[in-house]
Amino acid sequence: MGSLDIKQESSPLMTNPLDSEEFRRQGYMVIDFLAEYYKNIQKFPVRSQVEPGYLRKRLPESAPYEPESIERILKDVHDDIVPGLTHWQSPNYYAYFPSSGSTAGLLGETLAAGFNVVGFNWISSPASTELESIVMDWLAEMLNLPKSFTFSGDGGGVMMGTTCEAILTTITAARDRILDRIGREHINKLVVYGSDQTHCSFFKSAKIAGILPNNFRQVKTSRVNAFSMRPDALRAAIQADVDAGLVPFFLCTTVGTTSTAAVDPVALLCEVAKDYGMWVHIDAAYAGNACICPEFRHMINGVENADSFSFNTHKWFLTTLDCCCLWVKDPSSLVRCLSTNPEYLKNKATDTQQVVDYKDWQITLSRRFRSLKMWLVLRSYGVDYLRNFLRSHVDMAAYFEQLVRMDGRFEVVVPRSFALVCFRLSASAVIQRLYDSCHRHGHGQKFLEEETLNDVNAELLESVNSAGQIYMTHSLVDGVYMLRFAVGATLTQTHHVTYAWKQVQDHASAVLARRINSICNC
Amino acid sequence: MGSLDIKQESSPLMTNPLDSEEFRRQGYMVIDFLAEYYKNIQKFPVRSQVEPGYLRKRLPESAPYEPESIERILKDVHDDIVPGLTHWQSPNYYAYFPSSGSTAGLLGETLAAGFNVVGFNWISSPASTELESIVMDWLAEMLNLPKSFTFSGDGGGVMMGTTCEAILTTITAARDRILDRIGREHINKLVVYGSDQTHCSFFKSAKIAGILPNNFRQVKTSRVNAFSMRPDALRAAIQADVDAGLVPFFLCTTVGTTSTAAVDPVALLCEVAKDYGMWVHIDAAYAGNACICPEFRHMINGVENADSFSFNTHKWFLTTLDCCCLWVKDPSSLVRCLSTNPEYLKNKATDTQQVVDYKDWQITLSRRFRSLKMWLVLRSYGVDYLRNFLRSHVDMAAYFEQLVRMDGRFEVVVPRSFALVCFRLSASAVIQRLYDSCHRHGHGQKFLEEETLNDVNAELLESVNSAGQIYMTHSLVDGVYMLRFAVGATLTQTHHVTYAWKQVQDHASAVLARRINSICNC
Repeated sequence: MGSLDIKQESSPLMTNPLDSEEFRRQGYMVIDFLAEYYKNIQKFPVRSQVEPGYLRKRLPESAPYEPESIERILKDVHDDIVPGLTHWQSPNYYAYFPSSGSTAGLLGETLAAGFNVVGFNWISSPASTELESIVMDWLAEMLNLPKSFTFSGDGGGVMMGTTCEAILTTITAARDRILDRIGREHINKLVVYGSDQTHCSFFKSAKIAGILPNNFRQVKTSRVNAFSMRPDALRAAIQADVDAGLVPFFLCTTVGTTSTAAVDPVALLCEVAKDYGMWVHIDAAYAGNACICPEFRHMINGVENADSFSFNTHKWFLTTLDCCCLWVKDPSSLVRCLSTNPEYLKNKATDTQQVVDYKDWQITLSRRFRSLKMWLVLRSYGVDYLRNFLRSHVDMAAYFEQLVRMDGRFEVVVPRSFALVCFRLSASAVIQRLYDSCHRHGHGQKFLEEETLNDVNAELLESVNSAGQIYMTHSLVDGVYMLRFAVGATLTQTHHVTYAWKQVQDHASAVLARRINSICNC
Repeated sequence: MGSLDIKQESSPLMTNPLDSEEFRRQGYMVIDFLAEYYKNIQKFPVRSQVEPGYLRKRLPESAPYEPESIERILKDVHDDIVPGLTHWQSPNYYAYFPSSGSTAGLLGETLAAGFNVVGFNWISSPASTELESIVMDWLAEMLNLPKSFTFSGDGGGVMMGTTCEAILTTITAARDRILDRIGREHINKLVVYGSDQTHCSFFKSAKIAGILPNNFRQVKTSRVNAFSMRPDALRAAIQADVDAGLVPFFLCTTVGTTSTAAVDPVALLCEVAKDYGMWVHIDAAYAGNACICPEFRHMINGVENADSFSFNTHKWFLTTLDCCCLWVKDPSSLVRCLSTNPEYLKNKATDTQQVVDYKDWQITLSRRFRSLKMWLVLRSYGVDYLRNFLRSHVDMAAYFEQLVRMDGRFEVVVPRSFALVCFRLSASAVIQRLYDSCHRHGHGQKFLEEETLNDVNAELLESVNSAGQIYMTHSLVDGVYMLRFAVGATLTQTHHVTYAWKQVQDHASAVLARRINSICNC
């Protein structure tokens, strides 16, 4: 063995980037920054008011050569980044679906980033894997999922980033299950089913998995059935494909669609799919959260006959983005399809088959320690509070719905589900109002068209959002343009909802006045 | 319009989960917890010593009904979670590839989690999208990537979670580009190419994308060529497939393979692939980081002829997991294949086509504000320091390599690349040593087998890792079992490397002594 008389000094560096005291100093500053952000969040326009390209004008063209101080960086975050944020955590945020943050979720994310472990298999950080399995069992119990979806019942749960990943994972597993039986060469015969309200990521996932786009079936829904999928329509679509020599293999049902929070009749749809040996996934990304409340649990009745179930705790469960929880009855169907076993990952724990290696349950190898934040959320708030948190939002949405119903100019387009209210300036009232006003001036007829009503509502939404006091988004279902009011931001309280409604009313008055003026001046 | 004399009060709740002052109080505690963790990190065994199932024994069976205090939760993190961690941030961590954290990366992650915006399209949070495009251009300049990969050159970059996603995204885009030309029904003719050293996620991604597993080609490499892919072998494989009526469409080259950090000759391989109109991706997950140093940049020469390039800043760039940076020359090839345009996401900014909607560049819809942490890292440390940070690890690896070479019992298995040293107890020395020792006792012959040498090295690795003072992993290439010593943890300094080598030497002496004893006692 030789001497150590060789180069030992590396290039001279400044303070180590993980120096404990410098981390503490900067950490406090970032915590303070965020505490001030939450305190002042209502001062910012909810939807960012910047123009495309705003940031490139403000930032240098290249990364700095020399280090910059945290003080300067935080000043720039305040001056340059915050104006370009749409404030999802604002109490006046009602757009899309919520992304409800919390102290526990945020600090859980910080802890996970601090440990910064890469939990692709058990040995790479046992706590990451084990806590995930435990927390997924806890959540399954809270949802009253059948035991067959839990680890003690030969099923199991896994945390991913998004529903897109959960759906792609299950489609891929289901695809290989059927192709292993009928032969790989028959991929072009495979057919997937959703409704015209199923989230766009379902068909995107099917496309990624190599399913022929001609073989995507969108079962038509209608307002009469509150945009839920009809079992008889599904059966007809499946049978037609079977008759044509195709192979139905995957059904995606939705509990809480994105446009209107419609609920597919899971139990009945599972029965249809079962007749054809298909994999059924339940996408409850949004509404699954509410199902921890006993009074909403019936929305997922029939789940015992599905193959997989997922919901996003990053939506409406105080858990920071991202966290999609997926349960499957038969984890081996994922592992058969998605496992890899390169030499550089081999280890004794895996060989004993006593451990879960989550890399084999999902698309990606590397994975974050998501269960830590979920664990902090569950413990910091507890089951009782979490249920009441969700209920408070449903109550506030019900309150908003009542406000809408009391204003004759508006209508609720579909019955409210959960904490989402879909409404619009109504055809009967507003068109008539415009019509009457204009008729007196001889411009009547054309204002009775649905398209015009949609335009008026789109104008109302843009008027509200541009003002920046609240933020809502829209949808267009069955030809009907509607405003979506989704309660779910953590800071939202009843007085915010009252305020929001006042905003909507005021802008409606202004928009209608403008419309009448422009018509009468034409 | 009716009165507001209706229910306004939601269920009574305790302090709001985003209460500013409570967040500040708990935030300081978590920062303190992590500061202490970094201060004491060397006290923990690097590879967790827990047994499978350890955590379920310690945690309750159900989520708590009532809230628990942060004090109690942090105590449990300390008592129950930390023992189950493998400490990737330990200065004594040399396993897999690094996951180098930093104050800037961690606090950037915290800020992003605090804002908790969901940047699927521009309007959902303009700063998230714009900062990502800017930072990706900054990084492209640091890597001296051709302008054709930047936004000003009609290309562009996007941040994903992992290389798996980057590869799946590009395979899918390339697949649809060729299928649009030859017809969707020909998916079973498509062939993908890598080497037998290409990361396992490449073939997994191809499988997910519906490519026939029979059509995965692993070009054989050998120790003579330091396990890099030979252009003539690639050409032969492609031509054989063309002759058989198949359609080659995707080549994955690697700069810094997982087993040995081998570097494929990108320029030459691109020439071959170009002759067949194939998409070429460069997976530089690990070694791409080093390419911001001019002296390593030649490793990716030829990138100007590739279609896409990716590397992971969460590996070796002080950026917290997860962050994979992907550049493509033709973003429209991603968008054509991956875009969705549901009504509920339509907005004016998208309609003007002046903005990037990153949801159309990737698998998932929801996406975190990853560029914020990357921006903090680049600004907090600066280009000069980042280069020296990487160089210091390369220097330490070179130092370790010298130590190995000076101990006659060991050999360096392949020439060191970057900061990874692949070594083992050598055949010539050790087998001879065992052989000599045993020969005197009449047990000689069988100890000359390569398999025995592999066993001895596996025993050495397990002996080192079980002791918990340092952590390394292994690989097995071309029948040769080797120990991998990957320098890259942020806290590692030269004296840690000296210490690590002493550990290896001591355990080697013990393992060899045990082997000789067991043989002589048999």
